[in-house]
Amino acid sequence: MTMRDVAVVGVGLSKFGERWDSGLKELMAEAGVAALEDASITSNDVEMIFGGTMASGSFTGQEHIAALMSDQLGFKNIPAVRIENACASGGSALRLGYMAVASGIHDIVVVGGVEKMTDVPSAEAGTALGGAGDQEWELFQGITFPGLYAMMAKRHMHEYKTTEEMLAGVAVKNHANAYLNKYAQFHKKLTIEEVLNSKMVSDPLKLFDCSPISDGAAALVLAPLEVAKKYNDTPIKILASEQASDTLRLAERESLTGIKATSLAAEKAYKRAKVKANDIKLAEVHDCFTIAEIMAMEDLGFYEKGKAGKAVLDGETALNGKISINTSGGLKGCGHPVGATGVKQAVEVVWQLRGEAGNRQVNGAEIGLTHNVGGSGATAVVHIFGRSN
Amino acid sequence: MTMRDVAVVGVGLSKFGERWDSGLKELMAEAGVAALEDASITSNDVEMIFGGTMASGSFTGQEHIAALMSDQLGFKNIPAVRIENACASGGSALRLGYMAVASGIHDIVVVGGVEKMTDVPSAEAGTALGGAGDQEWELFQGITFPGLYAMMAKRHMHEYKTTEEMLAGVAVKNHANAYLNKYAQFHKKLTIEEVLNSKMVSDPLKLFDCSPISDGAAALVLAPLEVAKKYNDTPIKILASEQASDTLRLAERESLTGIKATSLAAEKAYKRAKVKANDIKLAEVHDCFTIAEIMAMEDLGFYEKGKAGKAVLDGETALNGKISINTSGGLKGCGHPVGATGVKQAVEVVWQLRGEAGNRQVNGAEIGLTHNVGGSGATAVVHIFGRSN
Repeated sequence: MTMRDVAVVGVGLSKFGERWDSGLKELMAEAGVAALEDASITSNDVEMIFGGTMASGSFTGQEHIAALMSDQLGFKNIPAVRIENACASGGSALRLGYMAVASGIHDIVVVGGVEKMTDVPSAEAGTALGGAGDQEWELFQGITFPGLYAMMAKRHMHEYKTTEEMLAGVAVKNHANAYLNKYAQFHKKLTIEEVLNSKMVSDPLKLFDCSPISDGAAALVLAPLEVAKKYNDTPIKILASEQASDTLRLAERESLTGIKATSLAAEKAYKRAKVKANDIKLAEVHDCFTIAEIMAMEDLGFYEKGKAGKAVLDGETALNGKISINTSGGLKGCGHPVGATGVKQAVEVVWQLRGEAGNRQVNGAEIGLTHNVGGSGATAVVHIFGRSN
Repeated sequence: MTMRDVAVVGVGLSKFGERWDSGLKELMAEAGVAALEDASITSNDVEMIFGGTMASGSFTGQEHIAALMSDQLGFKNIPAVRIENACASGGSALRLGYMAVASGIHDIVVVGGVEKMTDVPSAEAGTALGGAGDQEWELFQGITFPGLYAMMAKRHMHEYKTTEEMLAGVAVKNHANAYLNKYAQFHKKLTIEEVLNSKMVSDPLKLFDCSPISDGAAALVLAPLEVAKKYNDTPIKILASEQASDTLRLAERESLTGIKATSLAAEKAYKRAKVKANDIKLAEVHDCFTIAEIMAMEDLGFYEKGKAGKAVLDGETALNGKISINTSGGLKGCGHPVGATGVKQAVEVVWQLRGEAGNRQVNGAEIGLTHNVGGSGATAVVHIFGRSN
């Protein structure tokens, strides 16, 4: 079976943050219209929409999100499908959109991601987010998401001498990048000391080790590569789109110090894209907690197991370091509207590969990777993007 | 682009009803294991799973449902994606599974649908279901789903002299069919009088005009038709898989007496399958309310606008009538676990086309159709199935 090459020809983002000024629909429109304009298309050109959102039912009372996106963007009775894979909803939606175009079933497809999280009190938001884990065997027993990742952090520290300073280093770097991103939720630089002194959430994770509750939306326009230049001067090719799953509950995993679904998806993605981990100079990884970025760096093959933490403190992953990780600010600094995150990661990589990332541009960016995780690792999606000329 | 023919090679259903004995996981396992056994495959053979569910977050606190299905069925780290399109979640999941196999991306794919609705009080379930409509412009203003369909019924009665007896006729027929289905929630025959005398819910819809709150799950195994005989002696071919959308809110629709997304999806499906509406002798249609079945009969082209109600009272749509509609008992009699419904419809049609429907077998069934609606009609999915030899 020959698959067509697929390109991203339009990207759009809403401002991330506590968007008291906007509801679900306005956020969708903000990102969606920007993406359509970026691709120079109208709503009549779109053949299908995939909309990622995690828990809009619990956050806003609204399900049936993709039909609403389609409606809101003026699409004409096209098939609309909402995708939910917890915090990997956006990445999973992108993968299905990619499949629809690669297979030749559709030409122009829109992939949207959105989450409006601030309409409910944060405790309620925490409960809703808990649905990403095993409700019966984890959440109902009292563990929270920071708790799940804290256990992974503790084990990582035990096995590899990872330190709280290394975790804090991730937050400091990502806030420094977010400071340069006008779409980011936070424009506040942090110091290691500030992170270490922030309020304990779940030992060893402190407040500034955790990504925030956010509102936001992101959108992409996909087209066959062969006609992509019609829509955009710098189409960005999707070199690989891969996904893997694992047990929902942490207790049944083979290891607590890495996410197997990530390594499996990455292995397939490198093979498909015919690149190696060390060809990647730019990556948006899933840093829902600082420990998650360290595990991702290792599971994606950028660093050997146990070596990532030191690399962070050595500045190797800072903007234009050895590998620029989370130039957008990541989930930590840019914000984490859960259903939008996987799509936003792709928007950032596209901007970087086009050379449109402004004062946070990675020099000579040719290949970029996005890594989106659902829950504590039951889903992982890896995409690799490249300049097409 | 040449697409491969796709066949259903395995089907499975849980008992539908108020399943106090089972949670989400047990329901998934009940249907999923039955489908794997029916296809004579093991969990190692499955390459991807699409899981339909509407509001598991609100009903049970559990999101990330497809990863959980994959985990529960012992699948090996395969991509798992949850699909949500309100009450059309199951049909939409089937369409994506079909696309994955037809395109050659995957060979063996499982499509599951599940909903566990009885873990919350029914008022709370009603609020969760309301998320299928426009939360801001409909639900928040006080309208409920029976209210939305009641408005459609009133307008249909006004324009076409449709009567409350005709609506009641749908419920009577579907309960008669459900009486013959061991998986059905209700095994109680009704009379027109009983329906007319049942408690008013939203004028003109009475309690027995409404489908119930249900727990249940359904699953399908899909494979390329060319190898389908390896798995099942009577593979059933998917002749068409089409979907359309419309505005989320009823107020913006062109008409209240029909669902445009249904006619659009049906038109495409008949063209793709190269059949006409009157070739269909067997259909599972989306009777969330009795008026919905009457509109479906017309929107699918089985009857002219305004003629469906009389046909019901004349017995034309009863088992082995002119066209057998909802032999399973439909949503009304078999039950409506919302995310499972679209998948269950396909299970019933497959049983019928195989000749395995027992005492509710439609004689000489060769072609069957399923019709799954999300919300008040913002999504409609139509599948056409045929015996492959």
